[in-house]
Amino acid sequence: MARQMPEKIGETALHEDAMTGDGRIDFEIIEGLFFAYRDFISDPDAILEKSGFGRAHHRVVHFVNREPGMTVADLLDTLKITKQSLARVLKQLIDSGYIQQVAGP
Amino acid sequence: MARQMPEKIGETALHEDAMTGDGRIDFEIIEGLFFAYRDFISDPDAILEKSGFGRAHHRVVHFVNREPGMTVADLLDTLKITKQSLARVLKQLIDSGYIQQVAGP
Repeated sequence: MARQMPEKIGETALHEDAMTGDGRIDFEIIEGLFFAYRDFISDPDAILEKSGFGRAHHRVVHFVNREPGMTVADLLDTLKITKQSLARVLKQLIDSGYIQQVAGP
Repeated sequence: MARQMPEKIGETALHEDAMTGDGRIDFEIIEGLFFAYRDFISDPDAILEKSGFGRAHHRVVHFVNREPGMTVADLLDTLKITKQSLARVLKQLIDSGYIQQVAGP
């Protein structure tokens, strides 16, 4: 059951579930997702605070670690942030030696 | 089924579900929550960008609207942000007339 969770909370399901069908919004689902994410991110935030890096850096390191050699375009598509934001974050990670950038094939 | 979701993704369940029991981490659950939240927040972000307010302002307005008359202490407990952050956000919302602050009973 646990394995199916990400699918169940995919964007289509959430969108439908949060609307009760009569035009009212189901605040409990919306708030449930906020509370889940708030608690999900609190431990990483506490660790990041000591490191001087932020959530965006953490995400880049996570996804590059999961798929070494991934392209900047793939990373942009995964994170859905602006090119400018990613460039800034990537530069800091490259300058610190956490990420290595190489020319494409 | 949909109604139970917030409970299922509560912090205890998540913590257990993300660990596979043999010390490995189940990245799919972790990434599923990130993707769900990323898409959940993208429409509000786009609207907020035009307003000059951020996610923190949106959250304060949301929860105060849900429970008019709530105390600053309750708001802090709900948002789990620092007193300093909340004070800054609240001041901007009060100055703009979106939130009214009154003395307690």
